[in-house]
Parts: sequence; structure tokens; C-alpha cells
Amino acid sequence: MIMDGMGDRPLKELGGKTPLEVANTPNMDKMAKEGINGIMDSIKPGIIPGSDTAHLSILGYNPYEVYTGRGPFEAAGVGVDVLPGDIAFRCNFSSANDEGIVTDRRAGRIKKGTKELAEKINGMTIEGFEDIEVIFKESTGHRAVLVLRGEGLSGKVSDADPKIEGKPPKQIKALDETPESQKTADILNKLVLKTYNILKNHPINVERESNGKSPANIIIPRGAGEVPYVESLNEKYNIKSVCIAETGLILGIGKLAGMTVIEPEGATGGVDTDLDSITKTILENLKKDYNFFLINIDGADEAGHDGNLQEKLEFLEKVDSVIGEIMKVPNIYYILTADHSTPISVMNHSGDPVPIVINGPEVKVDDIEEFNERSAAKGGLCRIRGSDLMNILMDLMNNSEKFGA
Amino acid sequence: MIMDGMGDRPLKELGGKTPLEVANTPNMDKMAKEGINGIMDSIKPGIIPGSDTAHLSILGYNPYEVYTGRGPFEAAGVGVDVLPGDIAFRCNFSSANDEGIVTDRRAGRIKKGTKELAEKINGMTIEGFEDIEVIFKESTGHRAVLVLRGEGLSGKVSDADPKIEGKPPKQIKALDETPESQKTADILNKLVLKTYNILKNHPINVERESNGKSPANIIIPRGAGEVPYVESLNEKYNIKSVCIAETGLILGIGKLAGMTVIEPEGATGGVDTDLDSITKTILENLKKDYNFFLINIDGADEAGHDGNLQEKLEFLEKVDSVIGEIMKVPNIYYILTADHSTPISVMNHSGDPVPIVINGPEVKVDDIEEFNERSAAKGGLCRIRGSDLMNILMDLMNNSEKFGA
Repeated sequence: MIMDGMGDRPLKELGGKTPLEVANTPNMDKMAKEGINGIMDSIKPGIIPGSDTAHLSILGYNPYEVYTGRGPFEAAGVGVDVLPGDIAFRCNFSSANDEGIVTDRRAGRIKKGTKELAEKINGMTIEGFEDIEVIFKESTGHRAVLVLRGEGLSGKVSDADPKIEGKPPKQIKALDETPESQKTADILNKLVLKTYNILKNHPINVERESNGKSPANIIIPRGAGEVPYVESLNEKYNIKSVCIAETGLILGIGKLAGMTVIEPEGATGGVDTDLDSITKTILENLKKDYNFFLINIDGADEAGHDGNLQEKLEFLEKVDSVIGEIMKVPNIYYILTADHSTPISVMNHSGDPVPIVINGPEVKVDDIEEFNERSAAKGGLCRIRGSDLMNILMDLMNNSEKFGA
Repeated sequence: MIMDGMGDRPLKELGGKTPLEVANTPNMDKMAKEGINGIMDSIKPGIIPGSDTAHLSILGYNPYEVYTGRGPFEAAGVGVDVLPGDIAFRCNFSSANDEGIVTDRRAGRIKKGTKELAEKINGMTIEGFEDIEVIFKESTGHRAVLVLRGEGLSGKVSDADPKIEGKPPKQIKALDETPESQKTADILNKLVLKTYNILKNHPINVERESNGKSPANIIIPRGAGEVPYVESLNEKYNIKSVCIAETGLILGIGKLAGMTVIEPEGATGGVDTDLDSITKTILENLKKDYNFFLINIDGADEAGHDGNLQEKLEFLEKVDSVIGEIMKVPNIYYILTADHSTPISVMNHSGDPVPIVINGPEVKVDDIEEFNERSAAKGGLCRIRGSDLMNILMDLMNNSEKFGA
């Protein structure tokens, strides 16, 4: 159970305590009291993890080898069946005018109609590069993903996003000297122009404009990355795994790792998420024949990014109730931790270690009474790394092989 | 002092305590009280070590590089002067009939006469491969080791052991596509057949059969491994080292590491071993000019494999007396630890960290009062790896060089 961004730092406004030290979290504390505790560096001490790199590391992958950028994981997360070697991008639906100027980077924060628009882009051909397959799919809101598939492509290309309105999309450039990067940049520059021609007169955009809304008439790609080969988690550890998560990024990691992925109904990835629905989804799947669950709940991270202490405290207490419900299921190894800290004072991720508790049969219960950053550091696990966690769990589950005689 | 398999997990039958927490071990506790304590992952957290890979790691070798299989270490352990590049095997003396069927995999658990039989196999030639040297030596009981020495050989070959009686030895196959592996398989298949012709009419076997015993008339190799290059421990750390151990596997590691190896008289590797003799051997050698001792006592591991709690408790208490005797020798850095846990509940090795204490001049004595898995985790060493230990010890001994200026 990975509570995204749950870790924090001592806050002046809490008298030098952390949100986890102050929030009323009786179920987390029970788990700590009946388990073995420690602190964990998802990647290495002091390295500030992304949620993606942290989850990869915690699942036993080396993020320095596997992580090629956010595009591939986002693309997998929205349901594109990406293949190793594909080049994947995050995209915005944006608004442009006939002079090629971006007038609204988020196309008036469009909510509806992107599916129909995406279908027009998906499968398009690029003149001179007819052998390259273009896969395009809408995500939430104005977001979308683009995948280029074919020979001689590269992920080393720059972004088209002009970052501010009133400018044309940036010319995409090769970031190294290889012909593959040049070819990919050429394809993308043609693609961006062509998306305008395909979308500008689409009935959805005609209607939006007649209603005074910004049209979603151009596609702006960024965050290029070559889809990496990710060894199947199930084969690597001989498990049957499921990933229950709220965000495309984490679902994408689960997908690329070959896990079954489930996005609970009503999951928003924010503090307003439907925690009852998430709890129900977890409990239902605990009855099925999976033997490894990766659960990611995202709200504490959002509150941290917003620097909203009150929301973070409240969300921690709400999540505590979810944990209380799940803990009623017996004969399970529970692990509660975070992928990284998102301190209120930083309003972004930090490289602090996060607290971790492992609870279940035969663990060496220590004398820790509460679940928080400071008490966990005195626990029986001492300080571990994210990359140790699957090995420790598989050993407890008697699910790994001896190395040697 | 490595007490093989000493670590354990909390046991229901001990009210959630571990054998080390329950056993009466005043000398270990004294060592903990006057030393600095911690927990140690012999290889990495959660990785289940073999005794061989754990010892390699603790001696500062990378087992993922050096460990090529059990054969080379067993062969070195029974006293064959193996060389890097040799291909070594563990073997059984077995019984076969004229139809080539294995009738007893352990040759009636033969105890005597294997030395004479082995002398007939040692130095044999294989038709068509006269340049390959065959080295063969008996071990304890029906066990033996085989070493092939020469150009163009490989350790990537399958086992001949049919695993059950009533079948012929398995055809040995190359496990990769190289000509070296094919050549090695061809040699072994001829060798297995020829051992039957050499041994079947040997007087020892004629006598065994006339007494109704299974003859030891065929050699069945398994566990192939290419003998690795192992840097001399003495040169690596500028020490004069001795390995006092009970089992061929650990003695073999000492041998390959270039240590002086001593098998104390009466050492069985079991709970019935002669601990007085082991103590005497250690004390005698402490008077000599060695400055590094690796001591391995094996009984706790045997009790763990057998799931025999009472025997494990009793053996820990007996070993405690050995430690009490040795600790009387002053001005020594003592390290007490295990190579891995062999929990009573698992009846095999586990990936749990093991307790470790370092006792001697200038160590930062912590407030730990007892030697066991749980208390050690609160000690001043925190959590270290096996590969850290030699460096820590050499530093305390003022026996290592500064890295940098």
C-alpha cells in the first residue's frame, strides 16, 4: 500500500512535528505496533524520486535502466498496447489559429469530445514516412498520448510545447546526432502541422467555436521516450499480481510490468477521490486469486504539491480508515509505505526516506508504537532501499529460491 | 565466528520469541553488552543465501561473480588442488547392474573402501580425449568429487544423476551451444560408462556383493562448475588467515581463498560434533601467528533444517560455552554472527538479516544487552551487508589503506 507523497518534514506550524505525527491514524499505528518498522529510500538516500521511478524501484526494477521518460508509462497507462522500441509522448490538445499561433495550450480545458477527435488522429499517415504507424489516444481532460511505431526512430527529440500562449509550437529538434533522432523530429514536425489540418474543421471544434470555446485543433507532443523492455513482474517473482491505482502514470507502470491493472471507479488521484470505491475494489480483488497487490492512493501527494496542510492531515486520516477496513482480511503480509515525501514546505517531492511497516506472519515485531517518519527510524528493519522490498517480501512469502547451497 | 544457520524467526511455540532470545547464552550476551551490535544481510536484504555464497560475501568476494556452483568448492574442500578453469563435480558412488540400471544411488551408503576405489578412477583416461586429466577423490560416505582439467572444457553441462533408482544414469547434455560444453558432455558420458568397467570387478566390490551389500561400481557426477579465479584473501587484505570449519563446502571456500584450512578432529557438521575438540583447535591456533580466523560451526543449521527446536536451543547453549572459552583470550577483535538464518518454521535457509556483534578495542559500545535478532537491530552498527564486514574489521585492526588523500 503506497500512499503517494505521504512522507513529510517537521513543520513549524505543527510545532516541529510531521503531518503523520499529528494526524489521528489509529489503524496505521496498529499496523506499526504489530509489525516491523523502518525507513526506506525508494531509490537511494537523498535522491528525489518521481512517483514513476520510485514505483519501478520498489517493484525491483532499476529505474536508471528502465526509466526512459514519462511518455511510455503514460501511454501504457491510458491503455495503448505499447511495445519495446515504440517512441511515446505525452500530448496536449491545444488551440491554434490559421497563423499557426497557439492561443490556448489546454484547448479551453476541454472535457468532452476528445475521444472522437483522437480517433481522427489515430492511424494518420505522415507523408514520406508511410511505414511509421501513428497511435494516438485521449487521456483525461486536454491530455492525450502519442506513440510512433516503426523502424529507425529515437526518443531523443525535443518538445513541441511552446510553454506560453501566443507563440507557434516549437520546432522539434533531434537531441543527438543520430539519423534516427533527425527522422523522428522530421516526422513530428509534419505530424503537428497535419493535426491542425485534420482537426480544425471537425464538427466538435466547429461547435466549440460557435459556443465561444477554444477549439481542440492541434496536438502538441512532449516528453518523448523509447518504450523500454520491462521484465514481467509475475515471471520475475513467480507471482500473480494486480495493480490498483488512480493515475495513468502508476497504472502504466503496472501495465508495462505485465500486471493486471485496475482503476477503481470514482478514483480521481486527488483528495476528492472516492475512497469507499477504492476500498471496495481492493476488498473484492482480495477474494480473487492474486497473491500480490500494488495499491497506490494519490491524495496526500496532491495536498503536498498544493502546500495544503489541512488537506494533507484530513486525507491521511481518511486513508487510515481505508487501511482499517483492509486490515480486517487475515493471513496477508501488509506493507504500508510511501513512494516519496511531498513535504508541505517543499510543495514538491523530496529525497527524505519514508516510513515503512511490514505486518504479517513471522515478522520480528519491534517495539514501535506509531507509524510516522521519526518512530519508524527506530524499528527493526533499520534503513532499507526500495529495491530490497520485493526480495524481503518474497522471502517472507517463501516464494524465492536460495542462491547457493 | 560464523554460527551456521543460527538466525531464526519468532516462533509460536516460544511465545513469539526466537531461539536466540530464549536460549541461555550468557557469553554471547556478554559479547553483545561489551560490543557494538547490528543486523547483517550476508548478500542483500531478502536474498536467501547458501552457506557458500554467504561466506564468500562475508569474506569480501562478490558471490554473483565468484560462485559458479557447488562442485568447485566441494572439490577444493576435500583437498583437490583445483585450478581456475578446471571443471569440478560432486559425485556419488552408486550401484549399477550389467544392464546399466542404477540399483542404489548411494551404493548401500558405503563407508569404507572408497579411497581404494577412488584411486582406480583418479588418473583414468578417456578414449579420444587423452589430453584431459581426470582427478577423482573420495569424500565422506558415498560422496566424491571429480575434476576435469584440460583445454576446451565447460561447466555448462547437465547432471548424470537419475534421481531415482531403477533407471540408467542420465545422458549428460551440453547446456549451451558451445563446442566446449558438447566436448565436456561427451567426455562425461564416456567417463560414467568406463567407471563401471573399472570398478565392477574390484575386490572391494566383489567382497561387498558376497556380503549382500550394494557395490560401489559406478560414478554419477552432478553440480558441474568451472573453478573460478578467487583472489587470495591474504593478499587482498594483507593478513595471515586460517579457516577452521567442519564441512567440505566451507573448507573449500577457505581453500580457494588461499587460507590455511583446518578441520578439527571429531567435527561432524552436526549437533553431535565434538565442540571440545573444535575449541581446542581454535585455542591452539590462536597461539600461532595467524591474525585472521574464520570459524564455522554448523550444528544450528542442521537443527534448523531438521525443524528440531529443542536441538537448536541446546546447540546454541553448547556453542555459547565455546564462545566463553575463546573470549578468555585478550586483545582480539571478536565478531559473532551467522551466515544466514535457518528458521525452525522454514526448515531451510531464509533471507532474514542475522544479528552481528563486533567486540574489541575501541569499538563504540552501544546499549544492547543481549545477543539476538531483535535486540541487535537497535545496535550501533544499524544494518550492514556481509560485503562490508572485512572492510570494517580491517579498519578496526588498522590494517587498511586510506582511499584518497
